[in-house]
Amino acid sequence: MEQSRPLRQRAEQAVNTVPVWSVDPRTGEQIEQVTVEATGADVDRAVRAAAGTRQSLADRARRAEFLRAVAAELESDGERIIAAADRESALGVPRLTGELARTAYQFRAFADVVDEGAYLDVIIDHADPQAKPVPRPDLRRWKTPLGVVAVFAASNFPLAFSVSGGDTASALAAGCPVVAKAHPDHPATSELTGAAIRRAAVASGLDEDVLVVVHGRQAGVDLVRHPEIAGVGFTGSVAGGRFLFDLAVSREQPIPFYGELGSLNPVVVTEAAASARAKEIGTGLAGSFTLGMGQFCTKPGLVLVPAGPAGDEVEAALAAAAGEAASGALLDPRMREAFLAGFAERAELAGVSVAVEAGADDGVDGVPLAVRPGYLRVAAADVGDGSALLEECFGPVTVIVRYEDAAEVERVLAAVGGNLTATLHAEADEPAARELLERLAGVAGRVLFGGWPTGVAVAAGMNHGGPYPSSTSTSTSVGATAIERWVRPVAFQNAPEALLPVELRDAGVAGLPRRVDGVLHI
Amino acid sequence: MEQSRPLRQRAEQAVNTVPVWSVDPRTGEQIEQVTVEATGADVDRAVRAAAGTRQSLADRARRAEFLRAVAAELESDGERIIAAADRESALGVPRLTGELARTAYQFRAFADVVDEGAYLDVIIDHADPQAKPVPRPDLRRWKTPLGVVAVFAASNFPLAFSVSGGDTASALAAGCPVVAKAHPDHPATSELTGAAIRRAAVASGLDEDVLVVVHGRQAGVDLVRHPEIAGVGFTGSVAGGRFLFDLAVSREQPIPFYGELGSLNPVVVTEAAASARAKEIGTGLAGSFTLGMGQFCTKPGLVLVPAGPAGDEVEAALAAAAGEAASGALLDPRMREAFLAGFAERAELAGVSVAVEAGADDGVDGVPLAVRPGYLRVAAADVGDGSALLEECFGPVTVIVRYEDAAEVERVLAAVGGNLTATLHAEADEPAARELLERLAGVAGRVLFGGWPTGVAVAAGMNHGGPYPSSTSTSTSVGATAIERWVRPVAFQNAPEALLPVELRDAGVAGLPRRVDGVLHI
Repeated sequence: MEQSRPLRQRAEQAVNTVPVWSVDPRTGEQIEQVTVEATGADVDRAVRAAAGTRQSLADRARRAEFLRAVAAELESDGERIIAAADRESALGVPRLTGELARTAYQFRAFADVVDEGAYLDVIIDHADPQAKPVPRPDLRRWKTPLGVVAVFAASNFPLAFSVSGGDTASALAAGCPVVAKAHPDHPATSELTGAAIRRAAVASGLDEDVLVVVHGRQAGVDLVRHPEIAGVGFTGSVAGGRFLFDLAVSREQPIPFYGELGSLNPVVVTEAAASARAKEIGTGLAGSFTLGMGQFCTKPGLVLVPAGPAGDEVEAALAAAAGEAASGALLDPRMREAFLAGFAERAELAGVSVAVEAGADDGVDGVPLAVRPGYLRVAAADVGDGSALLEECFGPVTVIVRYEDAAEVERVLAAVGGNLTATLHAEADEPAARELLERLAGVAGRVLFGGWPTGVAVAAGMNHGGPYPSSTSTSTSVGATAIERWVRPVAFQNAPEALLPVELRDAGVAGLPRRVDGVLHI
Repeated sequence: MEQSRPLRQRAEQAVNTVPVWSVDPRTGEQIEQVTVEATGADVDRAVRAAAGTRQSLADRARRAEFLRAVAAELESDGERIIAAADRESALGVPRLTGELARTAYQFRAFADVVDEGAYLDVIIDHADPQAKPVPRPDLRRWKTPLGVVAVFAASNFPLAFSVSGGDTASALAAGCPVVAKAHPDHPATSELTGAAIRRAAVASGLDEDVLVVVHGRQAGVDLVRHPEIAGVGFTGSVAGGRFLFDLAVSREQPIPFYGELGSLNPVVVTEAAASARAKEIGTGLAGSFTLGMGQFCTKPGLVLVPAGPAGDEVEAALAAAAGEAASGALLDPRMREAFLAGFAERAELAGVSVAVEAGADDGVDGVPLAVRPGYLRVAAADVGDGSALLEECFGPVTVIVRYEDAAEVERVLAAVGGNLTATLHAEADEPAARELLERLAGVAGRVLFGGWPTGVAVAAGMNHGGPYPSSTSTSTSVGATAIERWVRPVAFQNAPEALLPVELRDAGVAGLPRRVDGVLHI
């Protein structure tokens, strides 16, 4: 079967199809041809090959072992992976070294989730002939894998949100084979990380096709339409995500589409906070909106700062720090054009002034395609519903919205839509703090008190999701509960114990959390 | 505000709009005009009125009290509600008496779920500056209500799956106000049950508009499109459900649509089971497919019976029992026509024979619109992909599919699509039993070993859902976990304890299950 050959061989064997190039975003130059785009037949073979591995993923203990082996394989090939990712993303070796550690950590964390088994949500109700209003049969419910999952890689995290990212890790953890659609910005990195996962599968006694990588835009479309695909994970733009979401839900048999599409990540700075910590807030904001050249999903893109002297001080600190922020390349030349155009377009809007001008910067050594960060300023009264200022502009730019009173803050928050994060800079004892925190919980999936939203801890309590368009679901794509996206409940009624999975028998599995006859047991 | 007046007054005050009639399904005659259809402006008022009650639903203890008050109000007005439901549904007083008890039980069960609070899924990760690969902030995650929920009532359970049904009970339990779209088959019952819920709200110190009832097909469309609606619960046909699903997901801001659309509920009888218990199986099947005149979502609509003498005996028992099954009215005259046409259409298919003929039966005292149950027989070889035999036919009919071998069983199961239930009649010790049970778990949300799928116990371990089209999600609409549909996670990062909901503070709430620093606590 074609998919069981090493992935890299395919380029040679299908030379008459569309080439996939690795491109240097610092220069715009082609580095190498990595492979070719998958045809419809390739996608079909990929999905069927993956589907054939479902049984091989059924054993929980082996799956956990496999996830740990993936972490080890990624680490052992880390140097090569990081070098490829840096060449293709310009994110830099230090950042990518951290991202690889995080990526390996995610696989190990999901191995722990699989071992613990709480996500199976086992519920046992023994038969009760005396139950009111009607007798109760024996019911035993748990969660089973959805089927083959399609994962769409993100541009901005070539490791942690791509072929080897959280969607893949959580789907494999749930027992779902994955067909990953590589991002065109980093095809070589995708092949390397995909190969690491496939090696780990073989080393753990699983079929290597538990993960198959495909390339090409049309391949992504074919994937979402494939009848054997049971769910989709996506991280990317609102336009691209909505296009695929529409495909997923308009299938004859609709499938869940877990998309993370884009986010403005509003920040509210109260008068009291600005008075107390103007410099810290302004400097911190500059660090956050320029981190990774502003290419985080959680970049603070709209910051409500009070009008008046305290707010002016916040801005003074911000302007000083942003003016000194380093230039750098963006993830690809197309994004660079979109960033420059997006900044210029917003700068032209009524009431908007350019505080620190973003723009092309070809003065950086060896980086002809660099840009420098900047920020815009506007009065809250000039931010109308539907303003472009309320849309994410990917890259190192943020918008400072100066407000006169609480009513203006509320009006802007009512217009921002759904977000991954919302951040409050306030004094803990000021009367408005609690209400503002609650208000921000209405527009976001994660609410920060102080600090900055860039940086998403991989932890049980993390939530990386939020109202549309920040996500298309009520789930998270980061943290332990991300596994819940890839399972569905099945209840067995009156089945003999010997025919049930061991987790559902009375004796059960030591340490598996369960609800038995209404009572939680750990 | 108009919505705060008693619901019944609206008929008099908007006489120039479309009347909503209560119709007797036994005769097809109009009983009374109940109200008028809601206009677009009515729907908008209803949603805004409901949205205004969110804060009133925020307190968990009060919400639990309210849910118990609903149960009491339904019971105290039970005689009148049951009489109205019987007039409008022809389901009979005994069945509706049981359904009312079940409906009240559902509200009390969700009150217990709210009191326990496990559904809040509280996760606390304390800050850990030493955490690898990166320091961890303080993260505290729980689930918050989605917003106003639209509930579409079902025809076949005027109490338990309608205005006072499980979707309403679970949404209110989650803290979501509800606008319920009444089913046209039982408008008077809808008004009575809606009024009971509104009385209970007032008695519990809540705003009565936590539930508002609207009538009319266009009102349903307007409801799904309304920007303040955050989720939809639906029980009904594949055609109607898919139409509304498509509306929900094509909104500018898509919303979750939890639909239960239709199910064939396949049954597999093994040779061993047929040999051991032919009479019990045949008689049991007759009882199940004719129960409530075959108008259960879980009616067994396709039964795989072995070819040969043992299967013949199953059929003999089935034919005898089905031939004696009582005639009766269906839920409305339109369904009666669809049932008669559906039976006739399937009887004409190649290879299909009429074993017991279903048909119009006007010989029943006082029930001019009665029908009598029947069943069809076909060889598995004659059931092609896409055959009408693989589609649900609502009403008292089932299809016996006689199979030669395991390969034929697999071929039919591969063609049946998604189901609420699948049932296996086998001997516990026959080698094929375990594999068949697992196979059935692939096509259904609930798998029965023996017994019959009609009758859905309201229990923590129940799952009433399954692959599309039986449901449009991976959730259940019955049982404790149904509440999970109406909440979304929110994580707070580094928020001072005093600003957090009490459930998320370290001291917490006694007895609330939580995961703290990775460890589950009950």
